[in-house]
Amino acid sequence: MKHNFGAGPGILPQEVLKQAAEAVLNFNNSGLSILEISHRTADFESVVSEACSLVKELLNLNDDYAITFLHGGASTQFAMVPYNLLGEGETAAYLDSGTWASKAIKEAKFFGNVNVVASSKEANYTYIPKEYSIPTDAKYFHVTSNNTIYGTQLHEFPESPVPLVSDMSSDIFSRVFDANKFGLIYAGAQKNMGAAGVALAVVKKELLGKIERKIPAMFNYQLHIDNGSMYNTPPVFAIYVAMLTLRWVKEQGGVAAMEKINNKKAATLYAEIDRNPLFKGTCAVEDRSRMNVCFVMDNADIEKEFLDFAKKADIVGLKGHRSVGGFRASIYNALPQSSVDHLVSIMQQFEQLKK
Amino acid sequence: MKHNFGAGPGILPQEVLKQAAEAVLNFNNSGLSILEISHRTADFESVVSEACSLVKELLNLNDDYAITFLHGGASTQFAMVPYNLLGEGETAAYLDSGTWASKAIKEAKFFGNVNVVASSKEANYTYIPKEYSIPTDAKYFHVTSNNTIYGTQLHEFPESPVPLVSDMSSDIFSRVFDANKFGLIYAGAQKNMGAAGVALAVVKKELLGKIERKIPAMFNYQLHIDNGSMYNTPPVFAIYVAMLTLRWVKEQGGVAAMEKINNKKAATLYAEIDRNPLFKGTCAVEDRSRMNVCFVMDNADIEKEFLDFAKKADIVGLKGHRSVGGFRASIYNALPQSSVDHLVSIMQQFEQLKK
Repeated sequence: MKHNFGAGPGILPQEVLKQAAEAVLNFNNSGLSILEISHRTADFESVVSEACSLVKELLNLNDDYAITFLHGGASTQFAMVPYNLLGEGETAAYLDSGTWASKAIKEAKFFGNVNVVASSKEANYTYIPKEYSIPTDAKYFHVTSNNTIYGTQLHEFPESPVPLVSDMSSDIFSRVFDANKFGLIYAGAQKNMGAAGVALAVVKKELLGKIERKIPAMFNYQLHIDNGSMYNTPPVFAIYVAMLTLRWVKEQGGVAAMEKINNKKAATLYAEIDRNPLFKGTCAVEDRSRMNVCFVMDNADIEKEFLDFAKKADIVGLKGHRSVGGFRASIYNALPQSSVDHLVSIMQQFEQLKK
Repeated sequence: MKHNFGAGPGILPQEVLKQAAEAVLNFNNSGLSILEISHRTADFESVVSEACSLVKELLNLNDDYAITFLHGGASTQFAMVPYNLLGEGETAAYLDSGTWASKAIKEAKFFGNVNVVASSKEANYTYIPKEYSIPTDAKYFHVTSNNTIYGTQLHEFPESPVPLVSDMSSDIFSRVFDANKFGLIYAGAQKNMGAAGVALAVVKKELLGKIERKIPAMFNYQLHIDNGSMYNTPPVFAIYVAMLTLRWVKEQGGVAAMEKINNKKAATLYAEIDRNPLFKGTCAVEDRSRMNVCFVMDNADIEKEFLDFAKKADIVGLKGHRSVGGFRASIYNALPQSSVDHLVSIMQQFEQLKK
């Protein structure tokens, strides 16, 4: 068995993978593969409807919100958000907390003005900026809830005088938060919610239809919402895997239960990083992500050796992103505590080796 | 065994489904699912690279073309084509041969002027318009190669004085044509090329970078080409299934072999429609599609009865699109001659029943 610490596409629950594989051969005992059925069949319509209901239930959303599954990933949403919410000449506020935030900022500039309220770029994004004010005339304020690359996370969401928009690709369904405080939430599926090729958008309905710009069909939230995520042929299989994964989250006890498990995994791993003299964390302690744990070695010369040592112990996906170096252990929902315990034990064995 | 005549997502080869299901459990003996591996792994990079090579080989493309796999379906391409090729104030020419053409036209109007050179809308799109001239000052001329809904097909592509752009979603890899005559070819995967959630674009490189408009990253062909279809996390599984399907096409003998098989299937079915007094085709005979065979009954009152009769004989997906009514038998690459023979035999049994 592999211990999959990959940053994404990331680990999925074994039960989900088994059901997904079965559906590729024979979906719902139809004698057909889920890859070759019409999206207009009752069986698939019930998949989309169950996926949306599960999102609503797991995030405890009120009726002000529409839920839609869209082609593409969060990168598509970087453009769709301003396409739909930011009129020409208007200003949106963004918090620049990492690579993805900075890409979202770049896309927003195609559509209107961007006010970057704060940035930690000068410190290689090792912390979440906290001293800033949100302009009250901004159309929205955009934050990245978790920075997959740098391993930082917004543990508290800001109180915002304007609609709060968040890219939650790498920590949605991993912790409890008040989703009803947001204007728009989006997430690529391939970390905690399924396979690559689909994004979730949770949109406060009153925010749409307020700008002059005409929006091509595929980039128009309202159209996808009005068509129940079926304006065109949706990414059928990716939505099915998302539904299975959301079912699994519910069966585990929902987001609160996931949070408890995730907090324990993160605490276990950070404790070892802080204890083990060979390793050290790369981020401000108060902003450490509970999804992506970034760390390096004091002696960078033996990092490769440790990676090889870990690989021999069936640990995969541990190499850090090139912007940070060292290691990144992504401990998404589906990663069990036992894999974290195994990694810690490997770190301890390596410490003994080097004594 | 079901006989899957669904219009799309459509039938895929059984071998492809088996390999896809296996990869969902254990991709390339990695011990990991294809749904939970990084798209930056060597194993997946070789999938993308093989998929692109197969496209190049099967379409016999010369080096003037770039091949890229993109999120979304053909509907996304309806907007991406003019986003990238049609400057503000410039004009593109479109042939209006069906619902998809008309949707493509609608999207193009967001970006520039559209000259619809001909339309068969007044005849409910039962034929392909042939009398028209292509304006020499148009940026490109757009045609839909096969009309899934109405069952018509361009058997000859027009000689065009401007770059020819074609939506080939429902007949790519089903017949031989000279791809090197085109400026841009795109296709959603879910008919002859794989599962929903990915589109192929074949782009003549010299056409890009010629307009002033700034293009957001996810809608920019050049960026996706420059990044080898990995600007962001691609739809990993959908690309894998496309690669498997393209491999299968090659194993069958390539596009020429597929064409031969498809022509025989089409001939078999149209012969029965023309012979059987209960049935009649809905399109101009010379424009009949060899992918989507549309037909109705002289007596519409017994259409439901025939559908039920066919369903009991394990025939699925035969109901016609609401715009045409009656029946539509989609006979994509993966549908065997034996399924067509079975349908014909059911039509004949029904004829006997009604005597």
